[in-house]
Formats: sequence, C-alpha cells, structure tokens
Amino acid sequence: MAGNSFGNIFRITTWGESHGKALGVVADGVPAGLALCEEDIQSFLDRRKPGQSDISTPRKEADQVEILSGVFEGKTTGTSLSMLVRNTSQQSRDYSQIADCYRPGHADYTYDEKYSFRDYRGGGRSSGRETIGRVAGGAIASKILKEMGIDVYAYTTAIGPVRIDPANFDKAAILRNPTAMPDNAANERALACLKTARENSDSMGGVMECIVTGLPVGVGDPVFEKLDANLAKAVMSIGAVKAVEVGDGVHVSESLGSENNDAFFADETGVHKATNHSGGTLGGLSDGAPVVIRAYVKPTPSIFQMQHTVNRDGENTEITIKGRHDPIIVPRAVVVMEAMTAMTVLDALLLNMTARLDRIVEFYRD
Amino acid sequence: MAGNSFGNIFRITTWGESHGKALGVVADGVPAGLALCEEDIQSFLDRRKPGQSDISTPRKEADQVEILSGVFEGKTTGTSLSMLVRNTSQQSRDYSQIADCYRPGHADYTYDEKYSFRDYRGGGRSSGRETIGRVAGGAIASKILKEMGIDVYAYTTAIGPVRIDPANFDKAAILRNPTAMPDNAANERALACLKTARENSDSMGGVMECIVTGLPVGVGDPVFEKLDANLAKAVMSIGAVKAVEVGDGVHVSESLGSENNDAFFADETGVHKATNHSGGTLGGLSDGAPVVIRAYVKPTPSIFQMQHTVNRDGENTEITIKGRHDPIIVPRAVVVMEAMTAMTVLDALLLNMTARLDRIVEFYRD
Amino acid sequence: MAGNSFGNIFRITTWGESHGKALGVVADGVPAGLALCEEDIQSFLDRRKPGQSDISTPRKEADQVEILSGVFEGKTTGTSLSMLVRNTSQQSRDYSQIADCYRPGHADYTYDEKYSFRDYRGGGRSSGRETIGRVAGGAIASKILKEMGIDVYAYTTAIGPVRIDPANFDKAAILRNPTAMPDNAANERALACLKTARENSDSMGGVMECIVTGLPVGVGDPVFEKLDANLAKAVMSIGAVKAVEVGDGVHVSESLGSENNDAFFADETGVHKATNHSGGTLGGLSDGAPVVIRAYVKPTPSIFQMQHTVNRDGENTEITIKGRHDPIIVPRAVVVMEAMTAMTVLDALLLNMTARLDRIVEFYRD
Amino acid sequence: MAGNSFGNIFRITTWGESHGKALGVVADGVPAGLALCEEDIQSFLDRRKPGQSDISTPRKEADQVEILSGVFEGKTTGTSLSMLVRNTSQQSRDYSQIADCYRPGHADYTYDEKYSFRDYRGGGRSSGRETIGRVAGGAIASKILKEMGIDVYAYTTAIGPVRIDPANFDKAAILRNPTAMPDNAANERALACLKTARENSDSMGGVMECIVTGLPVGVGDPVFEKLDANLAKAVMSIGAVKAVEVGDGVHVSESLGSENNDAFFADETGVHKATNHSGGTLGGLSDGAPVVIRAYVKPTPSIFQMQHTVNRDGENTEITIKGRHDPIIVPRAVVVMEAMTAMTVLDALLLNMTARLDRIVEFYRD
Repeated sequence: MAGNSFGNIFRITTWGESHGKALGVVADGVPAGLALCEEDIQSFLDRRKPGQSDISTPRKEADQVEILSGVFEGKTTGTSLSMLVRNTSQQSRDYSQIADCYRPGHADYTYDEKYSFRDYRGGGRSSGRETIGRVAGGAIASKILKEMGIDVYAYTTAIGPVRIDPANFDKAAILRNPTAMPDNAANERALACLKTARENSDSMGGVMECIVTGLPVGVGDPVFEKLDANLAKAVMSIGAVKAVEVGDGVHVSESLGSENNDAFFADETGVHKATNHSGGTLGGLSDGAPVVIRAYVKPTPSIFQMQHTVNRDGENTEITIKGRHDPIIVPRAVVVMEAMTAMTVLDALLLNMTARLDRIVEFYRD
Repeated sequence: MAGNSFGNIFRITTWGESHGKALGVVADGVPAGLALCEEDIQSFLDRRKPGQSDISTPRKEADQVEILSGVFEGKTTGTSLSMLVRNTSQQSRDYSQIADCYRPGHADYTYDEKYSFRDYRGGGRSSGRETIGRVAGGAIASKILKEMGIDVYAYTTAIGPVRIDPANFDKAAILRNPTAMPDNAANERALACLKTARENSDSMGGVMECIVTGLPVGVGDPVFEKLDANLAKAVMSIGAVKAVEVGDGVHVSESLGSENNDAFFADETGVHKATNHSGGTLGGLSDGAPVVIRAYVKPTPSIFQMQHTVNRDGENTEITIKGRHDPIIVPRAVVVMEAMTAMTVLDALLLNMTARLDRIVEFYRD
Repeated sequence: MAGNSFGNIFRITTWGESHGKALGVVADGVPAGLALCEEDIQSFLDRRKPGQSDISTPRKEADQVEILSGVFEGKTTGTSLSMLVRNTSQQSRDYSQIADCYRPGHADYTYDEKYSFRDYRGGGRSSGRETIGRVAGGAIASKILKEMGIDVYAYTTAIGPVRIDPANFDKAAILRNPTAMPDNAANERALACLKTARENSDSMGGVMECIVTGLPVGVGDPVFEKLDANLAKAVMSIGAVKAVEVGDGVHVSESLGSENNDAFFADETGVHKATNHSGGTLGGLSDGAPVVIRAYVKPTPSIFQMQHTVNRDGENTEITIKGRHDPIIVPRAVVVMEAMTAMTVLDALLLNMTARLDRIVEFYRD
Repeated sequence: MAGNSFGNIFRITTWGESHGKALGVVADGVPAGLALCEEDIQSFLDRRKPGQSDISTPRKEADQVEILSGVFEGKTTGTSLSMLVRNTSQQSRDYSQIADCYRPGHADYTYDEKYSFRDYRGGGRSSGRETIGRVAGGAIASKILKEMGIDVYAYTTAIGPVRIDPANFDKAAILRNPTAMPDNAANERALACLKTARENSDSMGGVMECIVTGLPVGVGDPVFEKLDANLAKAVMSIGAVKAVEVGDGVHVSESLGSENNDAFFADETGVHKATNHSGGTLGGLSDGAPVVIRAYVKPTPSIFQMQHTVNRDGENTEITIKGRHDPIIVPRAVVVMEAMTAMTVLDALLLNMTARLDRIVEFYRD
C-alpha cells in the first residue's frame, strides 16, 4: 500500500533522496539460480548516470552499485536482494531559495501540503535520482527475461518536433547517441534543438517507446490486471510522463473497426497477426506480436528563467532556478521505461504460471 | 493478485460472464454509515445499459441490481457489500462460429492460449458486460466522494473525427445525448457519422474525458502509487482503451518548459495555479486544480464485414460476425471511466489519512 | 486490505450476514480446467449445515449453493467464480434485546464502537454463518489439491475434558460422528458431557486438528510468509479460535533440543524424518512430513444463563439469551479449519512455482 | 507476495544473511513528522544483540544501525526509510560440514529443496540475525504508538519448567534480567537450569508474552483481518515459535461458556470487562482490555551432541555442531515479539481510520 513498492511476485521496494546518504532498492521474489554480479546492474545504471553528455546535468556521480544480500557464490538465492548506491556529489550549497518557495512544475507544493514539510535538497524523494532503484531492479528483471528468450528495449522517438524516421532505425545507435534515438540524423537535429532551448534558458519534452519481443501468448490477466493496464501504471509512474499509449494509441480514436482490427493468419510456424495495431495485446493478454508502448514526457520543469510562484507562507513571489539540470528528461528516462516494462512483464509471466490446472499438476509431478 | 479485484482500502471484486447466470461485484472497505439503496446504484447502471438508442446494441437487459449484503436499515455497515445483476436476455443461438474461430480485435485467441478453452458465448468474461461490476462499485465511490464535496464526471470529447467545441460545453447534455457529448451540435454530427459507419458495416472509435473537482491537495503517493499512475491503470484496464493522458498529455512532448510549467499564485482564498497543463497532479499528488484524464478508445472490434482469421485448429478461415453490437463503445464506456476514476480517487483519499503523524494522533485523541 | 479477502494467487472474498438475503463468496485465481459442479461444494457445506444433530442449533437452513460464474461446460474457466447461498430461515422475531445490549463473548460491543452501529440480527456479519463462504472456497481448493495428490482433513481431538485416544483413530468416523471425532468411544463420552452442559444452560469448548499429507518439500516462503505463519493466521481468523499450534506446539517450551529435533534419515524412497515434532515445517517451509496444526476453540458465548452486561447507552444491565444456539462450536468448525488450511496450502503451492529460475525457464520452454 | 515484507499501510521489507555484508530493512508508510534518530532504533537492537550474557552466543556484533533515508532534520518525511546494520564478526571458518549435510531442526534441507542451493554460512537468510530488520522496524512502530498513548511490552514467562510468579511481577526487571523475566527469583532458577542444559550440550525452550495497553476499542477488521489473526501470523513468523495463543488460549477448550465469557460493566469512566479471558479482542476487534498474546518457543536446534542426519547426496551421516550458539532463544526473541506486535497493532490502527464515513468526512473538513 505504501507507495515505494512495485510488483507482486517479483517486487521491488525503493528508497533514497537526491541529497541523502544513499539510494537503493530491495528486490524480493527474485527466482533462485540467476547468475548475477554488480556489473550486470552497473551497465544499466550507467545508462541513466548524469554527466555523460552536453544534454545531461554536469553533476558528477559514480552511481556505483553494491549488492548487499541475496547473492551467494555468484547466484541469486531466492531471498531478498538489497542494492545500494551512495550519493557522493551532494554540493554543499544554499537551499534557502527552494526551501522557502515552490518551483513550478515540481512536487514542492504538493509534498508540503501532504506531509507538512519536505526534504527540499534537490527535490528529496521526488527527484529523478529516485529512479536508481527502479533501474537496478529492472536490470535483474531484464536478465531473467533474456534467459527466457524475451527482449525488452526502449529508445527515444521524438524530442520536441524532431521525430525519428523508422526507415533509419538502427538499434545499435540507441546506446551510442546521447539522445537515445535509434536514428543518427534525428539525433543530430535533436541535439541542435536542445542547444537552442538551453541557450534560451528553456527545456524540451519528447517521446520514448519500448518494445517487448519473444513474449508467449496469454500473459497478463483479465479485467483489472491486464498487461497493458499494468504497463500504463508502470510507465505513468515515471516522474514526467503525462501520456501512455499501446500500439496505435491515440490514433485508434479516428480509425474504423475495419482498419483497426488485426487479421489473424496461420503458417507453418503458427498463428500470427497480419498487422499490429493492437500493440501486442488483446483483451489485456499478450497476443504474440511485439508489445509496443509509448510515453510522452514533459519538458524538464527546472528552467533558468524567472517564474511566478508562491512561498511557504502563501505569498506571491518569483523564482529563478539555479544549479545543474538536464535540458531534457527523455534520454536518461529511456532506461527507466525499459526497467519498468521489464519488471511488469516478468511479474505477469510469473503469475501466468498458475493459470491452468493441467500445467500446475504437471509442474509438481516432475 | 488474481485479476478481478481493484483498489486497496476501498476494493471491488467483480465476476460474471456475458451469457452466464448473472454478473456482480463485492465492494469491500466501504466506510460504515453511508445511506445507500439500490436506486443509487441503478442510476449509474442505467447509463451503461444496452438498448437505449440507435447507437447501442438492441439487446434488451433490465440490468436490475440487487444489494445482497453490507447494508442494514438503509446504511452501509462497513462490511462487504455484495451486488448482483441477473442476465435475462441470453439469446439461445448458435455459437459454433465463434466457438471455433477467433474474432479479430477480440480476446478469443489470447484466452484460448492462456486457459486452453473459453466461455465463447458473447465473449464470456472478456465481454463489455464485465463492466457492470465496475459501475456498481463506482456508484458507491461517487456517492461517498459527493459527501466529501468531490465531483467526478466523464463525457465524450470525440467520436471519430468529430470533436466537441469547449465553447459549447453543456454539462447537463452529457446524460441527455446518446453520444454522451456535452455539446449538442457535435452530438448531431457524430450521430450522422455513426449512421454512415453502420451502413458500411463498420464501427468507430472516440475519446472520453473525466474531471475530478474538489480534491484536496496532496492526495496520491510518491513513486509507484502516484495518483496519475493509478488513474492510468484504472482507465487502461477498460476493455478498448489504448491510450491514457493526464492534463496536456501527448502535447507536452512538443512544449517548452516555459510553456508547460503552471505558475503558482496566491489570493485571499489560498494558493492556485495560473494554468492547468499538469492536469491536476504534481509529483503524482493532487495539486488543487481539477484532475483531467483522457482515454482513447478503439472502434468496436465486432464489425459485420468479412474478416480473415484462423480457427482453433490453426487453419486459415474467414469470419463474418452476426449479432447485436454497438457501432461505437465510447458513449456507454463514459460511465465506466467515471466509475474507475471515482474508485481510484476514493482509495487514494482513504490512504492519505495516514500520511501525517500529527493528524493520526489527533484522529485518535477525539 | 479490507478484511473480507483471503489469499494471494488463490483468493476468496466473502460476504453476507446471518439474517441478510444471502451469503456468498467470489473465488479468484482458480486455475482453469478443474471439473467442478455444485455438488462438489455442497458436500462441504453440508458438513457445517445447522440442524443435523442434537448438538447443533435446530435452525433449519438448506444452505443450497448456486454457482453463478467462472464455470463453463463443467470446468473452471480461470476467471472469478461466484457462489451464493440464500438465507431461508430468518425467523421474524424480536431483536430489541440484543439490538440494545451487548452479549458477553460476542462482537456486539466492538462492532458498535468501530462502526457506530451494527446489523444486530443474529450477529450480522460476525455470525458463524460467515464461514459459508470460507467452506465453499475451501471445497474448490481441496479438489485442486486432490488432483495434486495432497490430502487435507480435520477432526475434533477434544471436547472439554474428553480427548480422543490415538489408538482408536478411525478416519471414516469423522464424517459419521456428530462430534467429528475419529474415535467412537470418545464421541459417546463427549456427547454425554454436552448433554450435561446443555442441561445446565451452559456451553463447552474443544480442540480440532488438521493434517496435510502429500505436500512436496519446500512449500512456503521465508521470513514473513512462512507456511506455518499463514496457517496460524488462517486458523486464528475462525471466530472462536483462541490458540493455534504446529506440531508439538505448546509442549516445545518444556522440551530439550535433543528431544525436539527430528533426526533425518535416508532410505531407498528418499529423505525422511525419524519423528515429526516440528509438525511438517522447518524454517517455515514444508519438510516432507505431514503438516499438523491444532486449534483451541472457546465455548459458544451464547449461553442461556443470566449474564451481566451493559447496553448501548452505557448502562449496567442483565441479559438472558434466547434462541437457537449450538452448545459447542467445534464439530461444525472442523470443516472450516479444513477449508482454511486447504486454501492456505494451495496458495503457497502456486507461489512456490516461481521460486527457481531453472523451473521457470523450463515451464515456458514447453 | 514475496515473503520479505510485512504489513499493509505501515510495511517493512527486510533483507540480509547471517554472514553476508549487512542486514537491513526498508520501512514504508511511516507517517511524516515523527522525531527519529538512530538511538531510537539502537536501543531496541541492543536488546537482541548477541554476546551480552552467559546465555547468549559469544559472537560479538556491534549491530550498529545507520539510517540512510526517510529522515530529514530529525523527523520522518513520510517516504521510505532505509536502515542498515553491517556484519562485522563473520568468522572466516570452515563451513564444509554444514554445507554438505542438514542440521536437524534447521531450514538447511527445506531451503535446498526449494531453491536447489543455499547460503550455508550460519544459516544464511534463515538465521536469527534476520530479525534485526524486524526489530528496527518495530522500534519505529513502538515510538509512534507511544505518541498515541499505546504501550507494547514483552517478556519471558517460562524457560523449560521454570515459570514466573505473577505475584512477583516487576516490569523494570525485564530489561535487567538476562532471561527477560519480570521476576528475579524465576530468573535465577532459569539461569541454573540453562547452566545444566549447556553442560549437557543441550538447549531449552520457553514461553514469552506480549501486552498491549491503551488501544482504542474496535481496532482490527472482521473475518480475515482480525487483530488476533494478524498477531498470530506476526508472532508465528518468528523463527522458533510453534504455538500462539490469545488471552486464555489453550485453556478455553476446557472452560465452560459461563466461565469464559467476560461480563461487561459500566462505571463513570466508561464500559469495561470484569475479566479478560478473551485477551483483549472480541470478534477480532480490540475490546478495550489489554491485548495479551503468548508464544511458545522451541529449544535452540543447534546442540553440541552427535545427531543423525543426511547429506546433500541423500546419504545417512552424523553431525556434531560446533560454533557459537545460544542455549535458549527466548530472551533475545522477546524484543522481536514486541516489535512484531507493535507493527501489527499500528497497521491495524492506521487502517481503522477509514472505517466510518462520518470520521472520514470530518477528517477532510479540517
């Protein structure tokens, strides 16, 4: 119930503030026998680490992960797995400005109203650094999915008005381009846009997409635990996401049924869909086609322009934010979306093992 | 874990199939002392009842609700509240066609793969009739919210290419127009479009929107239980919804930070936002502005044209669906969206009572 | 969170009051493909039905179950399964006495304080009739367990001072004897005691025991979800149970380690324990020996003697309870204990399927 | 679902192995505004710390707690609170004996069967050191309860055949006596017994009791979430507990209704019970009298005598355990029982705030 846990059978609980001692996560329900070391986690964390390009905050954090439990002789034990990342670059600076007044687009006001006070240093718990725990958990889920032949990957499809061209799709470019776009040309144009935005003390939004391939048919549960419903929650829970869509998404509202339905056909390899308007789910269960999910991300709320706001005493005032902030959230959020998707899919796969009596009986007969 | 429950403190569990004996819901965690009678529920169910207009299936169902427990002398007792609706219009017909082959855009194929068989009569559990339980639960949540001064209402904003004009907004028209549009002119144009679609044996999609007013600031929980994340799940779990957005939604990806941030200001009545791009949440907590959530709904997958598909034996075949089907889902889904939103908001409000120690101590001091 | 649900993957939600229209249960997470009919449920309900012997209330209820959803063509569909039992023998009588004052040993006072009022007819939701939903759910769990070669059975081991003699153990006698004792001689002596108690307008307590055989090793989860911890909750949640023990139970406190440890030994059939002091669990996981759990049940609080109490206005008064009440709870609670145990064990078995990565990978490879 | 979390609104998730790097806990749902420092936690941990008396293992651990998140400027923030204790005294020794064969009375065999391997060093996750996280979480719960006027305290009532005399009850002696008995004479006799047991290379069991005073009436929820059911689970989940009882416990089975019912009476201070056979609950809700719960604890399974057992290859063998082990578990488990009880009661109190509509409306009106 408390808000810092995600998942049912595979479940993470995250903790930590932007400028506290450390951040971390406890992953519970990790199946026993997975080969796992810190490098498996680190390679995911490095994708969201700050200070790696011109479009990322210059804050320098090693974000070095330490596994504290749940792994023995290189394998997961099946018990709770704790991971920790120490904060090392908390600048000792003057927080009186944001301690006293509410930054537009941030959670300062709402946290103060809910809890009566807040850790104002760098956003405290509402900071993007909160996602370290998500990514560390997602790294485990992704590794398990790989063992099952399931691939999850996310990338940027748009930054402001710049969109990738599917004809240029280059999966390898995702990890190489600072924008996380799988299209080199779009990457260049987006970087130019971001340079302008930054020169204007402004910030930009964008779109990211995540694909799941290799998923068996029938994963997800009817009614409230539909796979797409859980993916929507998972992705909408990422700080700046304001819209989530599956498959054709918003466009279905202007389609006709005859256009939107995906015809089935069979060949020697089995049943397939001729198109994938549905984005890989039917009735909330995976339908064998790739799962396609998209998230629309707002511009970084920390901009370096003067903004009107109020202070803790409820008086009108102005604020001009200083400090180290990304001009765009998307490129570093891509791995967060991938992590949330991987954990959601894994959890649904685990639950799905209990759907049929014959398979349960067979499982225990072995 | 099993998929037929929704919510934590206020929780519903729904059951029933399209052509089974009955459908229903158990609402648990209903606070004691709410005046409640069957008419309170019936008025909500009547909004999703079939057979009420030209754009609704001619299936005639009374959808008469019976309260079986949890109410004593006209008030809720605080214990589990069971409600039941008998199916009365299950046509005795030949289901051999859909028993054997998979309707495109439906859950037939995925249910068969998950469970190895399915109740094929009218879609079984994956039918839209499943939402009866949601609406009955939502009726209770809405009545509780009203006691707290919180109003939740949903309506249609678009059907295919026809969009409402905010200048014409007429709240009273929602319940009067068969499209559930709060704009009489748009309603007329949409009905004309639907007539054409039906004549073409086709179906249409649309957009619905839900508004929550009167919500205190700070409702929702950080990180994974953000109010908007839970709303996204709630709404995406409705059968045909393929995209969910909050506030400016997809448009934030093309906004600049300077445009997207909502400035705060104070006047004698308290703190407000000058705009509501955020759609009523900041950091996942309610921010005092109306909550605005939008859902994009696909066209009814049951169309009366020939479609290519496969049968249970994995052979290619064709299907031409017969029977009684709405040419559009949206108008009858509006009350479902309203119900899901009301339950999500109520659950968050109940949990929010435990956020602050001083308020807990004060609560028990009384 | 709300209190009327039990279990995680296999989960029931119960509802209904003693003198309401009906009682029932929704079972969710029932695996698809189980052959199930109303008679499977009825045979369990008949074991707790009133009016079957001299030591049971003369209230006549058919307690006839109706399955409303979740079964199609004789098999469970994997979706939520709703069952209903109509109340038929609500006597139209004067409840003013118990409406106004608090029966000692009952929940009248605590419900009034919690909810500010209560359904006072026959105890409302706190009546023993609440267990109908448990038993119906347990009948399903038991049938599934049988398919897996797991047997769960409960019986009475003591009524007041009369204890069964293990040397006389006769499993078939459980269902035959009105006391549910597996020992005909003890049954006779217990009936005599109960006759005396009833003549004295008094009531008696007793002990019941439940055995689970055939369980694989390793079922249950470490730390908080130990199999015995969940069994303790399951059994302690039955109305009148005041103590729960596993294996040697209370006697372990006076044992030495050298007496209490169960030695392991191996033979051609595998690993075994020489004794079963532990009652079938080690570290909270099943250890291959039969699970043995015991519950101590208080005497029926409804006695026909004058008792001192207070009324709703907080004034001292006296009450002499009238009506139809069992002189002992145990014999009819035995099937409730069996049901709660079966559901707990099944839920743990389902979750246990996800404990090892190699088995998960193998499951999905098929 | 995964087994390392406890509680709903106030929820802890624990992690760590006996000989891993560290152990810890994340407490979520901690209300904002509680003054909290490491010393508040340390004073609880010190009560379970090893090496403090002759009846405790000589293993020396500082068990020094570090708070890593969730506290800002000395107060809880309402977000997840992470605590860590580093292991410092993992002896580098030869574990080949217990790596290969199964200690009777321990979880070695069941863990190996469940997970296919285990961290065999000192019991790994199944070690009593696992309770560090429980006690740290309980320290927070206890401090919150104190703010509400609720006191929770546990103590030893028996060690083997030695029982405390209620006439000697001295609450202050609990923390002073190495046995945690509130009776100095019994403490002396128990120590003598333990000396003999140790000289015989044997171990002893015992009984502990926990009292909750100051609880309002009506806390707990009907049917499955009864306060006593949740307490039973909480306490039975402590490693060596084999029986749990509330109030008169096992003795109710031999009582008559006329003896067991607690009469109500009223005086100027309100409604009371003349006796407390029920142990503070009626119908699963707190009844205003002190909650009394008792746990029966088995003797330490690690004894220094030769025992028959099997090895990982399923061969018969013998084991004689070496190392550092308490001759009795009870004295150090007392604070664990207190912690589990405090967390259970707090969680029920938080949920209880949502039971009545009038109080909810009033809460939000403020």
